[in-house]
Amino acid sequence: MTRSPLAPDSFPDLPPIAGIKLGTAASGMRYQGRDDLLLISLAPESSVAGVFTQSDTAAAPVDWSRKIAETGTAAAIITNAGNANAFTGSRGDDAVHDMVNHLASHLDCDAGAIMVASTGVIGEPLDAAKLVPYFDRLVTQSNASWHDAANAILTTDTFAKGAHAKCMIDGVPVDICGIAKGSGMIAPNMATMLGYIGTDAAVPADVLADCLRAANDDSFNAITVDSDTSTNDSVFLMASGMAGNPLIAVANDPALADFRAALTLVMRDLAIQIVRDGEGATKLVTIDIAGATTNAIARQIALAIANSPLVKTAIAGEDANWGRIVMAIGKLGIGIPSDAISIDIGGYAVARDGMRIADYDETPIAAHMTGQMIDLAVTIGAGDGAARVWTCDLTHGYISINADYRS
Amino acid sequence: MTRSPLAPDSFPDLPPIAGIKLGTAASGMRYQGRDDLLLISLAPESSVAGVFTQSDTAAAPVDWSRKIAETGTAAAIITNAGNANAFTGSRGDDAVHDMVNHLASHLDCDAGAIMVASTGVIGEPLDAAKLVPYFDRLVTQSNASWHDAANAILTTDTFAKGAHAKCMIDGVPVDICGIAKGSGMIAPNMATMLGYIGTDAAVPADVLADCLRAANDDSFNAITVDSDTSTNDSVFLMASGMAGNPLIAVANDPALADFRAALTLVMRDLAIQIVRDGEGATKLVTIDIAGATTNAIARQIALAIANSPLVKTAIAGEDANWGRIVMAIGKLGIGIPSDAISIDIGGYAVARDGMRIADYDETPIAAHMTGQMIDLAVTIGAGDGAARVWTCDLTHGYISINADYRS
Repeated sequence: MTRSPLAPDSFPDLPPIAGIKLGTAASGMRYQGRDDLLLISLAPESSVAGVFTQSDTAAAPVDWSRKIAETGTAAAIITNAGNANAFTGSRGDDAVHDMVNHLASHLDCDAGAIMVASTGVIGEPLDAAKLVPYFDRLVTQSNASWHDAANAILTTDTFAKGAHAKCMIDGVPVDICGIAKGSGMIAPNMATMLGYIGTDAAVPADVLADCLRAANDDSFNAITVDSDTSTNDSVFLMASGMAGNPLIAVANDPALADFRAALTLVMRDLAIQIVRDGEGATKLVTIDIAGATTNAIARQIALAIANSPLVKTAIAGEDANWGRIVMAIGKLGIGIPSDAISIDIGGYAVARDGMRIADYDETPIAAHMTGQMIDLAVTIGAGDGAARVWTCDLTHGYISINADYRS
Repeated sequence: MTRSPLAPDSFPDLPPIAGIKLGTAASGMRYQGRDDLLLISLAPESSVAGVFTQSDTAAAPVDWSRKIAETGTAAAIITNAGNANAFTGSRGDDAVHDMVNHLASHLDCDAGAIMVASTGVIGEPLDAAKLVPYFDRLVTQSNASWHDAANAILTTDTFAKGAHAKCMIDGVPVDICGIAKGSGMIAPNMATMLGYIGTDAAVPADVLADCLRAANDDSFNAITVDSDTSTNDSVFLMASGMAGNPLIAVANDPALADFRAALTLVMRDLAIQIVRDGEGATKLVTIDIAGATTNAIARQIALAIANSPLVKTAIAGEDANWGRIVMAIGKLGIGIPSDAISIDIGGYAVARDGMRIADYDETPIAAHMTGQMIDLAVTIGAGDGAARVWTCDLTHGYISINADYRS
C-alpha cells in the first residue's frame, strides 16, 4: 500500500514509560513478514480506563474489555491484527476466553485482568489456537519499542501512528505516549480504530476515566473518514503511577489541567493521523462550527458536512462548491435558521446571513482548494455552541481500496 | 452524459390526462438546445397535494409552493431547470414573486394559485427576467406530451423518467401519469428530486393529500443514492376530476384501494428509475428488513445499510462482504440484538442468529453479486417491523461525476 500523501515524514520519538512493557510477535494468521500481535503488560497498581464502540454489533473482545475497564485496573492488554472476532456469537466469546486463560498462566495473573482488542475481518471465526504459541515470546521478550508496537497493530493503514507529550502534575514531570491504528471508521475487510495511551502518571481510575472521556470528545470522537463505525473501536488509557506524583483524588482538581491538556494533544495528534491515513485521502479538512444553539448541535452540523459524499467529492475535485455545504447543513432538518448561516472557506467570506456575499470572488478560494489543508467554517447565528471536526476528501482512491480489490 | 446502464429501454407510453395541459420552452438560462421550462396548467376545480423537502435550507420556491399545496387547490405549476433558487435570501423570494405575477397575467388567475419548482445550482441568484419572455409560449402552446415534460425538467439525469397506471374508482376507470427527475439526492451543482403525478380522478384535496403521503412513504421516501438531501425536493399530485367518478369523501374508503395501489405503483416506478439513474450506478440494490421492533426502526436499519459507503463500494466491487452489512446495522447503536441478526444475499443464507452459517459457501452469492440486481435481506428477531429500500452502488463513476469536473 502506498504511503498516504498526508503522512508525517517519520514516526516521532516516543520514550519508554516506566511500568509499561511492550512485546510483539508474528503469528502469520493473516499477514506474512510482519508482527501482528501486541502485548502491553502493566505494573501492579496501574490504573486503566477505556472507551469503546457504541455499535450494537460490538465484537466479543469489546464486550470483554469494557467490563474490565470499568473496574479501573488491569494487568495487560493483548491485541491481534487480522481477525476482528466480531459477529462470531458464542464461538467469539470462547476465543476470548482461550486467549486470556493462556496468557494468564504466562503472566501469572487473573484471566479477568487481561483486556483484549482485535481488528481485522468481521464474521470469520477466530482460531485462538493459532495465536497461543506466540504468547510465551510476547511475555518473555517484552522490550519492544512504541514504534514496534504501533506497527504490530496495523491492518490497511499506510503508516504507523504515534504521539508523545510531557507535562507536570503538582510539579512532577510525567510522560504520555500513544499509538493508534485506523484508516477508515472501518477499513476494507479489516475493521477498527484502536488507540493505546500510556503514562507514568499516578492517577486514580475514576479520575483517569474522566480525563479519557473528555480528551476523547475532542479527538477520536471528532474525526470521520466515511461515516462508518467499527464493531471493534477501543481506546485504552493506562497509568502506571511510576512518575511518583501525588495522587489527585478529584477529577476537576486544577493540578490536573496540564495533564488533561497534554492527553488531549496526544490523542488529537493520533486522531488526525488517522484522518491523514483515511482511505484514498488527499486532503485534510478542518470544519469549524460556531454560533449553534449548543455544542452538541454544532458537532451534529460539523459531522453532517464532514460525512456528506457531495461535500467530500467537491473537495477532492478542488471545487469550491459551497452550495453543497448549504445542502449538508439543511439536510439535518433540525430547525437551523437558514437566513442566519454564514460560510467561510480558507478564511475567505463566501456567504453571510443566508446569501452569497455581494462581491463574491472565487479566485482566492479556488487557490485554497488546491492545497492539502482545507478549512471550512460555518457560523449559525443561533447561540454559543461550537465544534471542530476533522475529515478527509472522498476520492477514486477510496473506491479503489474498497471496491476494486476482492476480499 | 452516457445513458445509465440501468436505464429502461425506452420512455413508456403516457396518455394525456383530461384537464391537465403541458407546455415546455427553452430559455437557455443554463442549457443550450433543450427545453428547461415546464408549465403544468390545471382545469378549474382541480385538487392538488404536495410533499416537500424537510431541509432547513429549503429553497424559496419550496417555501412558496408548500403553502399553496396546503390549500388543496392550484391553477398551475411552473418549473425551471438550471438554477435551484436556494440559499438566495430575500432575492430568492422576489424571483418567485416575479415569476408567478407574470404568469398570473398570462393565465388570468391569482398569482397565489401558481406553484413553483426549481432545480439546479444552489446559491446563485435567479434572474426571473431571463425566464419571463418564454411564459407566453408556455401558456399558448400547451400541447406538450408527458415525454416532452419529463425532458424539460432534467439536470444531470441521463434519461427521462415516466410511469403510468390505470385503475378504477367506484367502477369508473381513471388514469395516473407521472414524471420525475433526479440522479442523486442532490446532483453535482444541480439539485433535487422532483416528481409530478397527474390523474383525471375526482378526489377531494384532503383525501388526495393522504393518498400522496402514504404512497410517498413506499416510493420516494424509500430510496437513497448518496444520503444527501436536496434543498428543493418536491412531489406534486394533481387530480383534475375529469374522469367523472363519484367523489370519495373519506380517506380510508375501500373504494380508493385500487387508486392508492396504482398511485403507489406509479410513484415507486419513478422512484426506482431515479435510483437506476443514480450517479455512477451500475447496480440496483433492494434491501429488505424484517423482524424489527417497528416499521420505522426497520427503515432506519435499511437506510443505514443503503447509505454505508463501505457496503456500497463492496457491491460495486461485486464483493459479498457481508461483514460490512453487520457493521452498518450495528453503527445505529439503538439496541439491536446482535445475536438475533440473520442475513441473506440473493436469497442465499449467509448468517443466522448472530453468526455465519456453519456450511457457508460463497460461490452462489459471488455469482449473484455479478448481476445488475442485488438483493440484501436482513431479519432482526425482535418484532414485526419491516421495510424495503432501494439504492445503488458507489463507483468510480460517482467520484468522476462529482469530483473530476469543475463547476
